[in-house]
Amino acid sequence: MIVRDFHEIAKTDQNRVVSDANWTSVRMLLADDGMGFSFHITFLEAGSEHTFEYKNHFESVYCMQGTGSIIDLASGETHAIKPGVMYALDKHDRHTLRADTELVMACCFNPPVTGNEVHREDGSYAAPETAEA
Amino acid sequence: MIVRDFHEIAKTDQNRVVSDANWTSVRMLLADDGMGFSFHITFLEAGSEHTFEYKNHFESVYCMQGTGSIIDLASGETHAIKPGVMYALDKHDRHTLRADTELVMACCFNPPVTGNEVHREDGSYAAPETAEA
Repeated sequence: MIVRDFHEIAKTDQNRVVSDANWTSVRMLLADDGMGFSFHITFLEAGSEHTFEYKNHFESVYCMQGTGSIIDLASGETHAIKPGVMYALDKHDRHTLRADTELVMACCFNPPVTGNEVHREDGSYAAPETAEA
Repeated sequence: MIVRDFHEIAKTDQNRVVSDANWTSVRMLLADDGMGFSFHITFLEAGSEHTFEYKNHFESVYCMQGTGSIIDLASGETHAIKPGVMYALDKHDRHTLRADTELVMACCFNPPVTGNEVHREDGSYAAPETAEA
């Protein structure tokens, strides 16, 4: 059994804390934990906007705190984000996420993130075999 | 893209709301969503105790609200549960979860739950192929 405390990781395990432009993600579970998915708590700064397209991953995102919106860039549809709303990128959907206030999100990735990925210019993460290389 | 609101599902989609002895689970994602994992928001009543052993699944559980404890029944170790603590049953660990106050948990299952499972007497869910039968 793995037991981890978000607050401890955020303070002491910088290998599991990743920041990029206006977002920070605390990786509670990564590929090497052997669960077949990874699990992250992600913070997006108030006023920030992010365009991602996880071509090689499925991701679900559950809003725990904050308000904002997500735009599905294929359909142009906008959905409100608030606590209790989840979006799932079942078609690897290219999207723009806007944080009106700070968003705190619980995110699952399949395949699991290894911890070595960075967002590429196209908003994706490399597939696991590439990321490991 | 799938977008679902916990509060809407809890009110209107009883097919996604499952209750058993002192717990309720709202299934935000199930196997047929095609994500390769399922994602549930689960409530455990204050004062309740639950022994589970997911022999056929990996499960991670992130505490969003409430306090309690988890006992790893193989080692006898007890871990405090409070907001920000996650446990992951990477060895299909048999465990007892105690809710001192109501616990609200974000749970991921791999393989994904189909929605037809019930907890069997041994605290497990059937493997997906059995559950579908």
